[in-house]
Amino acid sequence: MTGMEMFGDNSFSSPCNTLGFLQKNNSLEEKGRLAGQKNLLSCDNSDRDARFRRTETDFSNLFARDLLPTRSNMASGQVTHASLTSCLLAWTLLVWLESGSPPPPTPTCKFTYEIAPVFVLMEQLTLKKMREMIGWPNGEGDGLFSPGGAISNMYSVMIARYKYFPEVKTKGMSAAPRLVLFTSEHSHYSIKKAGAALGFGTDNVILLSTDERGRVIPADLEAKILDAKQKGYVPLFVNATAGSTVYGAFDPISEIADICEKYNLWLHVDGAWGGGLLMSRKHRHKLNGIERANSVTWNPHKMMGVPLQCSAILVREKGILAGCNSMCAGYLFQPDKQYDVTYDTGDKAIQCGRHVDIFKFWLMWKAKGTAGFEQHIDKCLDLSQYLYNKIKNREGYEMVFDGVPQHTNVCFWYIPPSLRGMPDGDERREKLHRVAPKIKAMMMESGTTMVGYQPQGNKVNFFRMVVSNPSATQSDIDFLIDEIERLGHDL
Amino acid sequence: MTGMEMFGDNSFSSPCNTLGFLQKNNSLEEKGRLAGQKNLLSCDNSDRDARFRRTETDFSNLFARDLLPTRSNMASGQVTHASLTSCLLAWTLLVWLESGSPPPPTPTCKFTYEIAPVFVLMEQLTLKKMREMIGWPNGEGDGLFSPGGAISNMYSVMIARYKYFPEVKTKGMSAAPRLVLFTSEHSHYSIKKAGAALGFGTDNVILLSTDERGRVIPADLEAKILDAKQKGYVPLFVNATAGSTVYGAFDPISEIADICEKYNLWLHVDGAWGGGLLMSRKHRHKLNGIERANSVTWNPHKMMGVPLQCSAILVREKGILAGCNSMCAGYLFQPDKQYDVTYDTGDKAIQCGRHVDIFKFWLMWKAKGTAGFEQHIDKCLDLSQYLYNKIKNREGYEMVFDGVPQHTNVCFWYIPPSLRGMPDGDERREKLHRVAPKIKAMMMESGTTMVGYQPQGNKVNFFRMVVSNPSATQSDIDFLIDEIERLGHDL
Repeated sequence: MTGMEMFGDNSFSSPCNTLGFLQKNNSLEEKGRLAGQKNLLSCDNSDRDARFRRTETDFSNLFARDLLPTRSNMASGQVTHASLTSCLLAWTLLVWLESGSPPPPTPTCKFTYEIAPVFVLMEQLTLKKMREMIGWPNGEGDGLFSPGGAISNMYSVMIARYKYFPEVKTKGMSAAPRLVLFTSEHSHYSIKKAGAALGFGTDNVILLSTDERGRVIPADLEAKILDAKQKGYVPLFVNATAGSTVYGAFDPISEIADICEKYNLWLHVDGAWGGGLLMSRKHRHKLNGIERANSVTWNPHKMMGVPLQCSAILVREKGILAGCNSMCAGYLFQPDKQYDVTYDTGDKAIQCGRHVDIFKFWLMWKAKGTAGFEQHIDKCLDLSQYLYNKIKNREGYEMVFDGVPQHTNVCFWYIPPSLRGMPDGDERREKLHRVAPKIKAMMMESGTTMVGYQPQGNKVNFFRMVVSNPSATQSDIDFLIDEIERLGHDL
Repeated sequence: MTGMEMFGDNSFSSPCNTLGFLQKNNSLEEKGRLAGQKNLLSCDNSDRDARFRRTETDFSNLFARDLLPTRSNMASGQVTHASLTSCLLAWTLLVWLESGSPPPPTPTCKFTYEIAPVFVLMEQLTLKKMREMIGWPNGEGDGLFSPGGAISNMYSVMIARYKYFPEVKTKGMSAAPRLVLFTSEHSHYSIKKAGAALGFGTDNVILLSTDERGRVIPADLEAKILDAKQKGYVPLFVNATAGSTVYGAFDPISEIADICEKYNLWLHVDGAWGGGLLMSRKHRHKLNGIERANSVTWNPHKMMGVPLQCSAILVREKGILAGCNSMCAGYLFQPDKQYDVTYDTGDKAIQCGRHVDIFKFWLMWKAKGTAGFEQHIDKCLDLSQYLYNKIKNREGYEMVFDGVPQHTNVCFWYIPPSLRGMPDGDERREKLHRVAPKIKAMMMESGTTMVGYQPQGNKVNFFRMVVSNPSATQSDIDFLIDEIERLGHDL
């Protein structure tokens, strides 16, 4: 439950105390400049040097310094989220509404602190809170928001490679032995995509067997590590999925972490889909062991309802993200700026300018609180359990796996009456394989609802119902089942 | 000027004629279903099967089929941008405003056609128009919107590798010889980042010398290709920059293309910054030869003023993007869907879900027309020339390179009076190096304006003024110069 207590209410406490001293030269009088001001837009600038005069093209009375925590207000803990919010509103007025005026830079871009100071701070403190929820001591570590879980997972493979074979950055993959990555046969395809893109090759992404619930079998991981080593390959990286795409399965992270420690491998947890459960006291045990991971993907744009795109890659070791990716472009990252350039986060990314994904998440978290996310998540899981309970013994349904789903994924076949008496065999399988596509097509024609289907391994097409919208109700679930039966009855 | 004529006015002509037949089974009556309807939200559904009844949870009268071009309306050319706009508005009402209702998928996500049909179509037709402007015959080819120019450039390296060494996808970089990439010493650092990330190694990213204006010297490229071959390396890829980051230089694409053809290399044009000039009859000659490129990066979020993020990777050869990146994930890309699944674009990307970057660009293009973008671009270039003319002979200024800038980048030193008489040498260089940082810091303190600086090669810190906002005026430029002189006078 590390980190939960700090999130029980709706506030972040003195976040900027952790952010360091941003300005190198705070020689001007700072009293009351940021915190405690009644109105940032009417602050008194009479103490300023004549060179800092306002002019008619100046679009507000806000100073750049007003966006910076200063030595005095940080010492007194005055820079709170409330003042950050004030800054944001002021900055919004300053730039967004005035974007017709040159030359303010677009604030919807993040690579240096001067371009998007408020958003850089928001990103840093939010990432820290996420790391605290993972359970890393004091929320220490590193991270970035990236354009989606696939890219976050790609980062994890890149930094694992950099950790063990930093010379690959300059010399390429030929400087390393044959490296192999391990991930569940049920894991998201982005791990394989990363293997292809980054030059490992998909043949070197070894798929791990799972139990009947879609969870990695730790003994299979160890056997495959030993097999790879025997062939002379070098095991590098293990991905444990927290919330698999189809079954919603949570791999046993602690047991996988034991094996990673034993063989000195990088452990990544892909919590793109299941990471949100860290917000729930009832369900976060499914991610036990995540604090032992070296890196974590967590997409607030999935289970937590933040509009796409909002994905975080979180890293336990500080500095490795920059080490892996920095190119020190002279035109962006000048060491002789007048503020602490460790806040210029852009060089840690494989992107240059980044879309501001943090703002909507930060604002939602402020509005709902951790408790609100917890309610959201618990409700969705309750609802999927309602669906499971409704159909598990209902005539015409078969579950794809037994037992209450770990996440909100409910996987099932609808068996039309014409197939119910048929013995299992190729004919029934072929017919059943065509049922879900037909029903989905009719749903799309009808426009009433839509639910996805897919095959998995040797299992023919089945429905996968996923709940992530907390405004869904039991009657919506009832309606879905009614629709399936109405549309599928005569197939 | 290929493609320009088609863009002279504010309309796209019958774009859906090029989109192919989307629905496999259009058995229901289609007359008047999409084009020609007065009001999509009150369309008559009386001809439908009873199974397709409306219910109380149905949030509109819009059918999924209403979003699809049908055989009849495509044959008659009735599906125009106007009807696509109607579809969009209807779809907006259908999903965005009703997002509290389950289970509509979020439309701010693109990987399959069923999830975001309108946006998929918008993306396809807009990419086609961009390819026409590049000059590829009939706008044929492929492409994607990606989360920024760095990722688009990364795509270009990936697909070049896949084109020549497809086995790297499965076997990794060890299946290929030592591959080298070529790019200007003035090019964006994302090419080097891609080299590091994708397993080439930055040592294998060979930097090309430039002339005094920052343009690649073709003879240097050829010499370095021969040098690499002599060492036993395999030249793979050349990046030509169209609008370099610092100088705004345009590499001579035609001469580089000659060399690429001679040695059978992939030619990529990084037009992230300069691609917008294709919209200008006056300036597009700077990109002459771009039609010979194999791939092009073009960021409408830069010169064209589309809010970040909006970057396109455009590829001349169709199918290679999918070949390079597809993993055929069963849970998303089922071949047995009821529509033409070539519209499921997600598997071409290294991402899974993608942010909808196309809408704002499409809407801007519809609103401004190509002529509007052309005015925007011409005005920005005029304004930068005004700045150049103003300072080129002004006391206290030195230009970083001679002549009218090719793009809107105006690079210059401000020489404070205290340095004006000083002979060139280390002391003056060291002092001059500190001038721009000091003035920029004072600008930030003052809050009146901000202009970036950087060193470049052996040149000490200089200002780089870039104009991309068409609402800037000559008086803003005058003000900038006044501010530099006011703040820097006593340094």
